[in-house]
Amino acid sequence: MAHRVFNFAPGPATLPVPALKRAQGDLLDYQGTGIGILEHSHRKPSYMAVHAETKKLLRDLLEIPDGYSTLFMQGGARGQFAIVPMNLLHPGTTADYVVTGTWGEKAVAEAKLVGEAREAANTAGDDGKHTRVPALDEIAMAKDAAYLHLTTNNTIYGTQFFDFPDTGDVPLILDMSSDICWQPMDVSKADLIYAGAQKNLGIPGVTLVIIKDELIEKGRRDIPSIFQYRTIEKADSLQNTAPTFAIYMMRNVLAWMADQGGLEEMERRNRKKAGLIYDAISAAPDFYRCPVEEASRSVMNVVFRLPTEELEGVFVEEAAAAELMGIKGHRSVGGMRVSLYNSMSIEGAEKLAELMGAFAKANG
Amino acid sequence: MAHRVFNFAPGPATLPVPALKRAQGDLLDYQGTGIGILEHSHRKPSYMAVHAETKKLLRDLLEIPDGYSTLFMQGGARGQFAIVPMNLLHPGTTADYVVTGTWGEKAVAEAKLVGEAREAANTAGDDGKHTRVPALDEIAMAKDAAYLHLTTNNTIYGTQFFDFPDTGDVPLILDMSSDICWQPMDVSKADLIYAGAQKNLGIPGVTLVIIKDELIEKGRRDIPSIFQYRTIEKADSLQNTAPTFAIYMMRNVLAWMADQGGLEEMERRNRKKAGLIYDAISAAPDFYRCPVEEASRSVMNVVFRLPTEELEGVFVEEAAAAELMGIKGHRSVGGMRVSLYNSMSIEGAEKLAELMGAFAKANG
Repeated sequence: MAHRVFNFAPGPATLPVPALKRAQGDLLDYQGTGIGILEHSHRKPSYMAVHAETKKLLRDLLEIPDGYSTLFMQGGARGQFAIVPMNLLHPGTTADYVVTGTWGEKAVAEAKLVGEAREAANTAGDDGKHTRVPALDEIAMAKDAAYLHLTTNNTIYGTQFFDFPDTGDVPLILDMSSDICWQPMDVSKADLIYAGAQKNLGIPGVTLVIIKDELIEKGRRDIPSIFQYRTIEKADSLQNTAPTFAIYMMRNVLAWMADQGGLEEMERRNRKKAGLIYDAISAAPDFYRCPVEEASRSVMNVVFRLPTEELEGVFVEEAAAAELMGIKGHRSVGGMRVSLYNSMSIEGAEKLAELMGAFAKANG
Repeated sequence: MAHRVFNFAPGPATLPVPALKRAQGDLLDYQGTGIGILEHSHRKPSYMAVHAETKKLLRDLLEIPDGYSTLFMQGGARGQFAIVPMNLLHPGTTADYVVTGTWGEKAVAEAKLVGEAREAANTAGDDGKHTRVPALDEIAMAKDAAYLHLTTNNTIYGTQFFDFPDTGDVPLILDMSSDICWQPMDVSKADLIYAGAQKNLGIPGVTLVIIKDELIEKGRRDIPSIFQYRTIEKADSLQNTAPTFAIYMMRNVLAWMADQGGLEEMERRNRKKAGLIYDAISAAPDFYRCPVEEASRSVMNVVFRLPTEELEGVFVEEAAAAELMGIKGHRSVGGMRVSLYNSMSIEGAEKLAELMGAFAKANG
């Protein structure tokens, strides 16, 4: 039995042990073929079945409606920061971006290299930091915007959207890299959803894109074919060699989610885990401080501060001694960040919450 | 001990068993951290050491000179078909492409979506098929070309360049996806080399780019930042979450190559393996036929035909019964294709050559 710690890292993140063991068993010999899963051709039935199963699991778990396609791409969310405007930001139009943190800033900056883009909202405070997502009526979207883009969960600032604006005819684009599948959702509210896999869905190297077929057709045709969504859709994401193992791992993780009870169960666990950490913060209000406004607090990444940076350093050390790893905040904001993606167990959150209580008592 | 067959597939391709076993051991607990290799952050020392070691192994094995950078990107060679012209095909200039098969065709087509591109050579016969690479003096490169692009090895047609043109001040761009590291090379002859990893270097999901620093600086700045080589170089390929496991697997494969004796030894084995198959073809000239001109015959992918398609089908079946898999030719050309990348053992080639002899005798 392998030694395992609790890994609260923000991504690449912890994975379910059954998903890992399955991979371990398939590495040298997949299904008795004498060929490991890493070595199977993307054009052969053995891998194609994994590919199809991954799509089916996504469709079932997220209840993706007809009229939407699921694509597997490469390049991460950062790739999509470019590929979305390359496809959808036609000359003469302007795209609207909701900026709630670093990822939104980078997304709008990339769009500006492609065409016209503006900020429909920006929640940065005077210090440049973000402590909330905007109310929906704060979003000043132009009625003729090419699209509205927003980051649903901010890993660095620990904020999250729990509702999305109704954009009418304007396509709504959601970067859900860090919270896709955290709960059931109504996919039809969005026109394009994308997510790097390395948080809730698996490992880095594959980017999931769920896109309305109408939007695919509206995409530009004068950009490189490999970046046109229609190329990927037409070839079922096999226009060239797919990142087969990253898709295989997504399959393993999704199969684990389905086995555990699907997204309703993921939501129950995620709320429970986040509740444990936020409660531990509230229980020692003179010691812990969460900078995020209550209604915007992320269920995926809980950020908080201790009274001093010195105490923060000691806390990280004590946590590590208790095998609670990866809780240091992003270098741009400091403090603590506890990532509680689907694969983190309730037990892990309980142990960390306990330590928080004991540490506040001992050092408060 | 896992059951293993001989897998002659064109990529994703067979991998060295030691590289796979190493991965198997690291999957749930990497170096006693209690965190599997798939779950390690790309920003933490544990992974960063793998990243650095991969670069070091490449530099040592290929003797990459100073003034060149090694980048890890995503999207495969097909991604580079777009990214090369996006960076280097400035308005008002024209890029020259040597077309020796499907990949060259696709590369020049993609460049034409970005800017001006022309074919400096095209070896297609009247039937549209390719049976050779051009002599160097057949390549009609313009003196002021933005660059000259060529595919060093053609997986589908089984042809390979064994020498490269001296392009003077015109940057030489080599797509070496299917033959990088097959032998030692003088990297300084090229200005940019790229290669998807799934043949000689590891698994799909990472694309190696070796680029002259001067060329990075000459790249366009008005394209999305994530596709600018300078972004990748400045961030040491960590501008966003890297495909960590694909890079880790490249490390394992490169470490295996170094351990086996480096690229001199790879070349010795590759020539031996290809010699066995080509000899088996020559030994039964009335039965087997290699359509490729002798001087252009690939050491990586040996293509050949049998007298009839029916016999080809029987041969594939007999090979499979002998656990010699993945030898069917590309659907666009038919026949047989035997891929003999670095990780294929001499034993595999011997067994296949033996079968070829026996099969010709029995059916000729």
